[in-house]
Amino acid sequence: MSNRENAIHYVKNNYINFESTLVELVKIPSISTSPIHQKDIRSAAEYIQTLLLKIGIQETKILETSGHPVVYGSYVTQQKDAPTVLIYGHYDVQPVDPLELWTTEPFQPVIKNDRMFGRGASDMKGQIVASLSAVEAVIQTGKSPVNFKFIIEGEEEIGSPHLHEVLETQAVLFKNDVILNPDAGMISPSIPTIVYGLRGLAYFELKIFGPDHDLHSGLFGGVVHNPAIVLSELISGMHDKDGVITLPGFYDEVLSLSIDEREKLSRLPITEEDIRKQTGVKELWGERGYSHIERTGSRPTLDVNGLLSGFIGEGSKTVIPAWAMAKISMRLVPNQDPEHVHQQLIQYLTENMPSTVSWDLKKFAGGIASMANTSHPGVIALEKALEKEWGTKPIYKREGGSIPVVAEMQKHLGSDSILTGFGLPEDNIHSPNEKLHLPTWRKGILALVHFFYEFAGENENK
Amino acid sequence: MSNRENAIHYVKNNYINFESTLVELVKIPSISTSPIHQKDIRSAAEYIQTLLLKIGIQETKILETSGHPVVYGSYVTQQKDAPTVLIYGHYDVQPVDPLELWTTEPFQPVIKNDRMFGRGASDMKGQIVASLSAVEAVIQTGKSPVNFKFIIEGEEEIGSPHLHEVLETQAVLFKNDVILNPDAGMISPSIPTIVYGLRGLAYFELKIFGPDHDLHSGLFGGVVHNPAIVLSELISGMHDKDGVITLPGFYDEVLSLSIDEREKLSRLPITEEDIRKQTGVKELWGERGYSHIERTGSRPTLDVNGLLSGFIGEGSKTVIPAWAMAKISMRLVPNQDPEHVHQQLIQYLTENMPSTVSWDLKKFAGGIASMANTSHPGVIALEKALEKEWGTKPIYKREGGSIPVVAEMQKHLGSDSILTGFGLPEDNIHSPNEKLHLPTWRKGILALVHFFYEFAGENENK
Repeated sequence: MSNRENAIHYVKNNYINFESTLVELVKIPSISTSPIHQKDIRSAAEYIQTLLLKIGIQETKILETSGHPVVYGSYVTQQKDAPTVLIYGHYDVQPVDPLELWTTEPFQPVIKNDRMFGRGASDMKGQIVASLSAVEAVIQTGKSPVNFKFIIEGEEEIGSPHLHEVLETQAVLFKNDVILNPDAGMISPSIPTIVYGLRGLAYFELKIFGPDHDLHSGLFGGVVHNPAIVLSELISGMHDKDGVITLPGFYDEVLSLSIDEREKLSRLPITEEDIRKQTGVKELWGERGYSHIERTGSRPTLDVNGLLSGFIGEGSKTVIPAWAMAKISMRLVPNQDPEHVHQQLIQYLTENMPSTVSWDLKKFAGGIASMANTSHPGVIALEKALEKEWGTKPIYKREGGSIPVVAEMQKHLGSDSILTGFGLPEDNIHSPNEKLHLPTWRKGILALVHFFYEFAGENENK
Repeated sequence: MSNRENAIHYVKNNYINFESTLVELVKIPSISTSPIHQKDIRSAAEYIQTLLLKIGIQETKILETSGHPVVYGSYVTQQKDAPTVLIYGHYDVQPVDPLELWTTEPFQPVIKNDRMFGRGASDMKGQIVASLSAVEAVIQTGKSPVNFKFIIEGEEEIGSPHLHEVLETQAVLFKNDVILNPDAGMISPSIPTIVYGLRGLAYFELKIFGPDHDLHSGLFGGVVHNPAIVLSELISGMHDKDGVITLPGFYDEVLSLSIDEREKLSRLPITEEDIRKQTGVKELWGERGYSHIERTGSRPTLDVNGLLSGFIGEGSKTVIPAWAMAKISMRLVPNQDPEHVHQQLIQYLTENMPSTVSWDLKKFAGGIASMANTSHPGVIALEKALEKEWGTKPIYKREGGSIPVVAEMQKHLGSDSILTGFGLPEDNIHSPNEKLHLPTWRKGILALVHFFYEFAGENENK
């Protein structure tokens, strides 16, 4: 048997072990946004480091940042002139609220109908374990065709605010020929997917302050401007009737879609009906003049992620709230700059804020959008690898999500990321009841084994 | 000494005891809106019943309703042909959140600088104890000039939804010549106040439903209508640029202000600066074309009392929320009908709701506005009593708050309520750090003693 065949064989004999590893990792509640989970973040980083050592990675360390730590690893093969694949991942996960909507415990993974349920099972602890399992197979069964490096961070879900610290000061550690980033997903279990574009992100918290304490709405209703109403009016003005965002200059830097790209995107096998099923909405919505695929991948959007004001308990309480808060974020496309969007939002608020209230705008970490070169050797190797496993050519897609680190790594390391992954649209990532489709995940491990050999230029018979 | 003088003397000798009684009553967290406080509601009712017995009320009972119980009491004096005063009160209080803004424990009353701090100290446990203290004084020091009845309910802060049950079935118990309702307040410590108008209330909870679970805003931003944005747009449309409410037909039934009444209201000694001080806002707001006094007392208003949607924790979470909720209420004026307002809101929502979402509107208890006859003998007696204590004629005011029970009692018992009270605008009722100004409260007790004698037609020398 060839080295590749041995590695494939190894994977097929070890699915149970890989699943157990994933279960252990999902059990760690490594929520990055909440200070309460500081210890769990550390545990997850240490778990990853131990795992790297266990699968045969020669050098590992935990790199400290001003935020959560980054796990580093390096494996040098005995093969001469082997290229280096840097595998990116994040061990942190999204918060779990609203907890009452989960049907299982988010950090007690449960397998039902070929699916593993748990926060992070798909995004992206499952993808980390898939990658490390493929690496384990090629290392343990012969001479690996490639060198490996690892950069597994703990702040992706909060916008990777501190990753640049290690990228800037220790860029030499991460030298590579290609970055594999399995944090993207597939459009269906039968259609392997390569993502060549990602949206950027800008995230804000807006607070409107009215009276200095909650007021009796009978005594003061009619003389005090209600901050919840002011906030609603401001949010209301951020889109026009056609779903177009009204912040001044918002579209000035947006790279428009070429006719060629619009044509290609129109052939993607994702229907409006698919999205209705995944989301449960009765009707889609969005910017007039663009298809549903263009609107998620290639056009910027603005969403309210949270609202809070006044009395939210059961029953009635007749107050005029002292303040009202909204979390507001924008998904950005090439060539928008999150800092420019920040300025546009400030300008919009300044121009539209009534003089009856005061306000505060907090900015959270964001990032620019990215577009990959689809003729990169890594992309070509990945296309072959996915085709080998699925028996069909992968499709190329622009993704609506944001992975700011892709642009960060391009900037600091000068390398391109190739984006794939084995999660599915129905995985409920960032939502209650997140899950991972295990049969697809297993195929993904096999595809990654193929990828390593394809990227090294080894053919089936070598 | 006359009976009246004896009673006045009794009050002056017993301030400390009256205060202790109030402290004990404020300690009971009788929040009516929350099912958690069921037991405390019962304790408060029992405390009032015990207190009635202690001050000499001959007959007391707790009347059950489908909601919280009503405390009844009756005292018949030996004086022949004495008129009957029915004293109304409510032993329930508003919720205490946001708890973190209280500087003392809401249910551990603290006295500082002549003020008692605690939830209900002003609204209206303080007013109940003031009334019962005055009653105690006239009963304990001689032959009371009037008969007393009591109706102390536990649901005023949630709109008195079940009081009508006892009013309907046991109206005969509550037969009276005048109802004294001390649930209104004064405009300043030096200006005794008689309230002759109250606003009504309509209260709703609106919920907008989008996707069937919180979605990843990257994957679905641009195709799914954000329910928090839909809610904001709906709220935004409820007022026009002039602060006028846009619900269809909202002003059709509004009784407009007469020139005479506008002239009288314009002489009330409440300035815009007073309101800015009480609320901490930098600028007032409201319906164009009406003064600040007219807008709170005589014009209907619409407020958002609470907002909730999506992620409200610290930091960032990139979700499109599954739903968004607003508590929305209107203060009504004569002759608006809360049920008509309900229909107007439904019509507005039906006409303006996008087809991308679904919605639910819940209605809470409300009530109609009321206006009193200012030539009622009870009003005249109260005017004299207040003048005797403060040395100045009371002012007549239309109040912005709502006491639906005033209209209910008019309907079921056929009697008018006279509205007064010894709370002040700066008491923070319904807000954190509610407080009661004790010197004003003590004067109030004395004024009520005078009122009982004045109403019975007994002059100083009798």
